[in-house]
Amino acid sequence: MLDINEAQKQILEATPVLGRVSVHILDSLRRVLAQDIEVTEDFPASDISAMDGYAVRHTSLHSVSRQMPVYLRIIGESPAGRPCGASVRDGEAVRIMTGGLVPEGADTVVRLEDTAEDSGYVICTNDPGRGDGIRFRGESLREGEVVLRAGDLISPVEVGVLATLRRAYVYVHQKPLVAIFSTGDELTDFHDPASPWKPMCSNLYALAAQVLESGAVPLCLGVVKDDLEAQKSMLSDALRADVIITSGGLSKGKYDLVRKSFASFGMDMRFSNIFVKPGKPMIFGTIGRKLVFGLPGNPSAAMLSFEQFIKPAFLKLMGHQDADAFHGRSYSRDHLNGASLIDSFAHGNAGNHGHHRASLVPMGRPSPANGRSGQKQKAVDCSKPGRSERVTH
Amino acid sequence: MLDINEAQKQILEATPVLGRVSVHILDSLRRVLAQDIEVTEDFPASDISAMDGYAVRHTSLHSVSRQMPVYLRIIGESPAGRPCGASVRDGEAVRIMTGGLVPEGADTVVRLEDTAEDSGYVICTNDPGRGDGIRFRGESLREGEVVLRAGDLISPVEVGVLATLRRAYVYVHQKPLVAIFSTGDELTDFHDPASPWKPMCSNLYALAAQVLESGAVPLCLGVVKDDLEAQKSMLSDALRADVIITSGGLSKGKYDLVRKSFASFGMDMRFSNIFVKPGKPMIFGTIGRKLVFGLPGNPSAAMLSFEQFIKPAFLKLMGHQDADAFHGRSYSRDHLNGASLIDSFAHGNAGNHGHHRASLVPMGRPSPANGRSGQKQKAVDCSKPGRSERVTH
Repeated sequence: MLDINEAQKQILEATPVLGRVSVHILDSLRRVLAQDIEVTEDFPASDISAMDGYAVRHTSLHSVSRQMPVYLRIIGESPAGRPCGASVRDGEAVRIMTGGLVPEGADTVVRLEDTAEDSGYVICTNDPGRGDGIRFRGESLREGEVVLRAGDLISPVEVGVLATLRRAYVYVHQKPLVAIFSTGDELTDFHDPASPWKPMCSNLYALAAQVLESGAVPLCLGVVKDDLEAQKSMLSDALRADVIITSGGLSKGKYDLVRKSFASFGMDMRFSNIFVKPGKPMIFGTIGRKLVFGLPGNPSAAMLSFEQFIKPAFLKLMGHQDADAFHGRSYSRDHLNGASLIDSFAHGNAGNHGHHRASLVPMGRPSPANGRSGQKQKAVDCSKPGRSERVTH
Repeated sequence: MLDINEAQKQILEATPVLGRVSVHILDSLRRVLAQDIEVTEDFPASDISAMDGYAVRHTSLHSVSRQMPVYLRIIGESPAGRPCGASVRDGEAVRIMTGGLVPEGADTVVRLEDTAEDSGYVICTNDPGRGDGIRFRGESLREGEVVLRAGDLISPVEVGVLATLRRAYVYVHQKPLVAIFSTGDELTDFHDPASPWKPMCSNLYALAAQVLESGAVPLCLGVVKDDLEAQKSMLSDALRADVIITSGGLSKGKYDLVRKSFASFGMDMRFSNIFVKPGKPMIFGTIGRKLVFGLPGNPSAAMLSFEQFIKPAFLKLMGHQDADAFHGRSYSRDHLNGASLIDSFAHGNAGNHGHHRASLVPMGRPSPANGRSGQKQKAVDCSKPGRSERVTH
């Protein structure tokens, strides 16, 4: 027997970290940096003004006060974005904009609001202190400093930092390609004719949606019959992916088929708990560096297994270093509210989950006072395993 | 004067809800349903088995017990996915799979685990009760019931429900197209030559990333000079979008230009707080049904204003009905941890935010014990307005 934490641990141990890929910074959102970002110049690159005002020599402001204003002659202007040729001496000032280069000779910026202009002179009435109003070269960052590290998750803030550093492209970890297929003679897909006896392979789409939400790339391969050759052919197609997820085929009558088709591709079965109760049936194995997950046909059990076992593996594949996320703590009850809502539709899809009577899930819109998911939550609780659930080796 | 809540309220009042668009269910993730989803057939469509076992008449099990087993003749099989022709009488049984149609005459399914087979007979040793093991037609859902409603947010569970109901496409609310541009002679973009005096228009990319994270579609129009004709031409281009966001141009020297260019397109200025302290400068107006936001050039102030004022509007545009999200409560401090990290780089971009001295933000990797964002959070606090911040009308 293997408890959930141990099963998660085994999965993560078998999970590689995918290599890097170069993407535009706007495509790097929610992905993990695969390189350190080093600053290649000082920030700011020169002494610049932190405000609109006047660049002066501090000595010009000696004993200034509201009662004893100082008149400084304006000898030029330093807008943002281009160097100012002027050199400031005692008794002189340069009109300066936020971001403008502090001209030679000046060591202080007096803010616009504390001044007045009159006939080519600026009237100063206070001394802000030497060096005030200036952001000195390298004050924020020195050339060579590392501002972002491999392993950092990219949010809009990091995108802004990268843009500031003129990095249009960055290396991030690749997204896993995830092949998904459902097994079962009785299942149909959108392109098959509808039949009252043949349920839709809804797990295919629910799992693909979970894959998308995890930041990975789903490859929906469709439905495969309960036939060895068909399953081998499907699996052969699925092997181009980094991860293979199957849904269904874990019941007593079908498992042998699934096991054989996996074995024919040399799968190393890491664990399987499919005939043990209580517990959701699931198998995990590897084919080379590829991960193979066999999930139950029951929709909420499949979705829950995804959250508990597969999503942490995806995070590792994509370079996430957060150990909390790895061990399935990212799984939240809220996330799957209403998963059993699908179960109640998915007739013929209950798999090993069968003994409970499917109960009517009331799905009228809850009143705002009750909260939106009140009913759904109640319905799903019965199918949620506790942390003490065990998985068999 | 206008406080933040009142400003948010005014913005939302001016914000329309966008129309609907038909998308594949996998493209509907995280979007808001724009139609009710009504069930078009009973679920299950017939009486089906909830487990693998034997379909029998309950009367055949009269007084059965472990000591007094009953032998029932197996007259056929009902796999999932196709109807079974057999009709069950007393003393007979049909082998049935999970999801298989309950054959005529049968009213109970005995689970496989409680039986044994012997020479064409099934041996039953217990009575599960009449009706057990069966999911009756319409038990989960009746034709005509509404299972999902306009306004529901699509998560993987809803995708599964829609697939189960054979809905490949659904109507969801459209995503807003959001034009973004930065104003400032001194700014450069990736396609301009680098210059130590010309900072990157990093806000363009940070805001585009925020737009993407909100589920909307950014249209990065680039940088525009401090020139009326250039700004009018840029704005004319931006008018194909649903929302226009500008960054910069709110300082004393430049605002008149921005105001004139907006006015030339008939903008109805709803509020502006650009020369009032304390508070982040911002303007909000409408051109027809389009929303226009003027944000400050200071990076963390721009990002914060986005979270507080623009994101709630986006949620409304995209059909979200959650009032909490509308009133900016979606804004979290964590979300912008480290935003001031950009400020420290963005020389020449401090806008009206100028008086504080940009301080050195230590950006070495925090130790795991301290949490990743410890330093960043400290740095950003000084630029965060409290809830009591006021915006001037």
